[in-house]
Amino acid sequence: MSNNLLAGKRGIIFGALNRDSIAWKIAEKAHAQGAKFVLTNAPIAMRMGEIKDLAASTGSEIIPADATSMDDLDNLFTKSQEILGGKLDFVLHSIGMSVNVRKGKHYTDLNYDWLEKGWDVSAVSFHRVMQTAWKQEAMNDWGSILALTYIAAQRTFPDYNDMADNKAYLESIARSFGYHWGVRNKVRVNTISQSPTPTTAGSGVKGFDGFINYAHEISPLGNATADDCADYAISLFSDLTRKVTMQNLFHDGGFSSTGVSDSVVNKFGSEE
Amino acid sequence: MSNNLLAGKRGIIFGALNRDSIAWKIAEKAHAQGAKFVLTNAPIAMRMGEIKDLAASTGSEIIPADATSMDDLDNLFTKSQEILGGKLDFVLHSIGMSVNVRKGKHYTDLNYDWLEKGWDVSAVSFHRVMQTAWKQEAMNDWGSILALTYIAAQRTFPDYNDMADNKAYLESIARSFGYHWGVRNKVRVNTISQSPTPTTAGSGVKGFDGFINYAHEISPLGNATADDCADYAISLFSDLTRKVTMQNLFHDGGFSSTGVSDSVVNKFGSEE
Amino acid sequence: MSNNLLAGKRGIIFGALNRDSIAWKIAEKAHAQGAKFVLTNAPIAMRMGEIKDLAASTGSEIIPADATSMDDLDNLFTKSQEILGGKLDFVLHSIGMSVNVRKGKHYTDLNYDWLEKGWDVSAVSFHRVMQTAWKQEAMNDWGSILALTYIAAQRTFPDYNDMADNKAYLESIARSFGYHWGVRNKVRVNTISQSPTPTTAGSGVKGFDGFINYAHEISPLGNATADDCADYAISLFSDLTRKVTMQNLFHDGGFSSTGVSDSVVNKFGSEE
Amino acid sequence: MSNNLLAGKRGIIFGALNRDSIAWKIAEKAHAQGAKFVLTNAPIAMRMGEIKDLAASTGSEIIPADATSMDDLDNLFTKSQEILGGKLDFVLHSIGMSVNVRKGKHYTDLNYDWLEKGWDVSAVSFHRVMQTAWKQEAMNDWGSILALTYIAAQRTFPDYNDMADNKAYLESIARSFGYHWGVRNKVRVNTISQSPTPTTAGSGVKGFDGFINYAHEISPLGNATADDCADYAISLFSDLTRKVTMQNLFHDGGFSSTGVSDSVVNKFGSEE
Repeated sequence: MSNNLLAGKRGIIFGALNRDSIAWKIAEKAHAQGAKFVLTNAPIAMRMGEIKDLAASTGSEIIPADATSMDDLDNLFTKSQEILGGKLDFVLHSIGMSVNVRKGKHYTDLNYDWLEKGWDVSAVSFHRVMQTAWKQEAMNDWGSILALTYIAAQRTFPDYNDMADNKAYLESIARSFGYHWGVRNKVRVNTISQSPTPTTAGSGVKGFDGFINYAHEISPLGNATADDCADYAISLFSDLTRKVTMQNLFHDGGFSSTGVSDSVVNKFGSEE
Repeated sequence: MSNNLLAGKRGIIFGALNRDSIAWKIAEKAHAQGAKFVLTNAPIAMRMGEIKDLAASTGSEIIPADATSMDDLDNLFTKSQEILGGKLDFVLHSIGMSVNVRKGKHYTDLNYDWLEKGWDVSAVSFHRVMQTAWKQEAMNDWGSILALTYIAAQRTFPDYNDMADNKAYLESIARSFGYHWGVRNKVRVNTISQSPTPTTAGSGVKGFDGFINYAHEISPLGNATADDCADYAISLFSDLTRKVTMQNLFHDGGFSSTGVSDSVVNKFGSEE
Repeated sequence: MSNNLLAGKRGIIFGALNRDSIAWKIAEKAHAQGAKFVLTNAPIAMRMGEIKDLAASTGSEIIPADATSMDDLDNLFTKSQEILGGKLDFVLHSIGMSVNVRKGKHYTDLNYDWLEKGWDVSAVSFHRVMQTAWKQEAMNDWGSILALTYIAAQRTFPDYNDMADNKAYLESIARSFGYHWGVRNKVRVNTISQSPTPTTAGSGVKGFDGFINYAHEISPLGNATADDCADYAISLFSDLTRKVTMQNLFHDGGFSSTGVSDSVVNKFGSEE
Repeated sequence: MSNNLLAGKRGIIFGALNRDSIAWKIAEKAHAQGAKFVLTNAPIAMRMGEIKDLAASTGSEIIPADATSMDDLDNLFTKSQEILGGKLDFVLHSIGMSVNVRKGKHYTDLNYDWLEKGWDVSAVSFHRVMQTAWKQEAMNDWGSILALTYIAAQRTFPDYNDMADNKAYLESIARSFGYHWGVRNKVRVNTISQSPTPTTAGSGVKGFDGFINYAHEISPLGNATADDCADYAISLFSDLTRKVTMQNLFHDGGFSSTGVSDSVVNKFGSEE
């Protein structure tokens, strides 16, 4: 369904790894709404991905970029503006990875080199992306910059490990840089705090199945899907939300505001 | 501008008093996006209002209702479904009034009868509206219920007086009733926490001019206007936001996430 | 154990109903720390209570007062200052009651007369207490005013019903009035958001057993007990916390900051 | 004044640089309350400090440690337990530094090597400290671990620069590690979010004077001083707060809950 909400808008989408990726769904819906954009991913991730199919179906070009490399990012923003024919209206950051999670290191036994790597990839990359755009003056006024995050930044989910701290840092960058973008360019910066979503990234987390079931049972509307998240992202790229900035926006079927649901509390009732 | 975002949707809009009202702007934009709706206001407020012009320009009918009267609300929801030809997809609650504010009573010298009156009109009315809709099963699945609020519910603005406590109660109702609506009908309930806005209601608050200037200077994007708020409300009534519920959504140009701006801090510097 | 933390301090303690009451424990510990105070309760509640034993063991007098009656409160503050020999250093508000909860009315089927009654008793009473003290100038500089609340003010626990909204209103009063107390008298006003506690009041809530078990299993330190809460209250009445004001302080063994615990998520796992 | 609140307790205090340091005041008050502790600082910072005077007046030993070095921390915790004669009851982390702030780099022009350095010193060091204590099983049950932070982690203060993001990461570590400490050892972990304080560290921030005046005028109780903060830290190390964990505790005279004060809004009024 299209409402031409993004007609004439140009953007860059990070993180469309495969059909399960939230960024993939956002690319499809942004295309349907009339946007033009460049797709990008880390060179190492792209070899695994099916991103060429997505580029074909959305009429997009792909520019590989390691989001921790200022040279790659500089090239990406320069080329994207050439390809798209002007400054950008939106950017999606959907990047996250923890080596400690992948390697199964417990939070009380972290490897600090891996910690630094995950922090750089998952969080600092968002600053690097914005600093590059800032210096190139690559954003149109009233543009929208968006990153994806998770409620572990506010409350501990033990298996989420050091990604929780990375997400807290990411959300802080959104506020800190959002201030400057607002003052100089009327550009807004927000994060979507999304329900746990069965993507390739999420599926690496220990205990993920149990947790996704728990979240679904707590949330009055159930977990938000990748598809739902794409709809929400469209609204945040559209001109309907121009005065929303520096916010962390929960998109989670009500999870964040539900202490407990009837169905969950019943499992802990008096007569087991 | 229309994107047909609300094509086929039916609703009720409370609180369009005059052209300055946020609800008035929302009605105009909802109409432009294809919605059909009934306009309502307290009989006493309507005599002052220019609501007939709005009804004409949006092809709407007007049903007077005192939002503290269960009979009036029952009639309103019954008639609205008849007029619109089916269940509802959205409801806007934009109602607020404090007798203590109007009469200039200080927060440390409240009249408790007036307190009760303001609480009933400003906050309990939201529960009354939803309880009426609940009992009539008047909402379609995936509908959206929205109320307007203000950040005084989280932080003290002394001149806002007992309206702060009313707004805190209103936001709590959104969460409490939102849980049940979600579980039974997939209906979402949210509040927009809007920048201070020069409406008829706002202009009664002592020190309002000073405060609106201060908020504008803190907010990186400046204060959100009534027109901006209407855009945001459209996104929240549309299908793009179906998994957002029980949230208080700041629509304030970044005010809520800004500790201080450069321009404000300069007024407090040591030797400028 | 005493550290003389409240030596020479005078106060009023509302809500010591029986030995299970949090206010009862606070009275005992305040006495042990050297405080002098007056005990008070609603006349109707006092007939059921064992409050005379508490008065005897703490050397306190009892002054019955309906916390919704300005005359009773006026008498209470006047007499208390006479009995104690000067202005007050601390006040504890531990009052809450919902007729809708007692009568088993569902949140979607509230009786609005009962709603108003519960709101007045549970929340407005805190304003009434402070307005009385304000007008009598009954607080010493650097005094401490404290109320008890529950996390349902932020997140929905369906069985908590309209008490959630009352607690949200109560917490807002703490901020709103706290501003004025701070400016005029350096008095601080805070709320403790306590773990679910098996008091006479709590035990009336449907599903309470299941919920208390759930909260205990989520909280890394387990639920905070009434005894723990009394310790915390002592710290907040003492001079160690003079610059903490307008805060809602979670005292819950970590519940509020824990998304899920390992033990709870295991109940939702796929095949563990 | 002593209440023997920390009699028999053993601890480690990081960050007592000179008489203006908050950690210095905490050390003095902890000593007065009966605690025994080891003082530590980075070797490079200690050469500048007057820490030997503090050691003499509190009967403490000094063990230099770079909080980014696991070897130094391992040695610190081993030696401290030997010197103090047993496991620890409290740890204070008061460490923060941003090279970008010191060098005057704007937030939109960060040097990423300096960013990494500041993140490691200001935030990761807290994890390193706790991981060392965890592996050595160095904490007694019901111990208390505390770090100092600032509200820039929640709201943007532009001159605070990348320290805002470091503080957000630090606060997240407190929650994440606090979960595990709670489950294994009943140890609590919290952060105090302190008013802007004129310490050696704070005075390096551009616009600090203007900001500290602004904060003072917003806060109903005025800014909390280093001395006030020490009192509050004592309460959090004492047994009065054993069930408070994973919390960020605002100690700021009410700043965090005040939208605007009368005195500030008057500066922005038209001329009423």
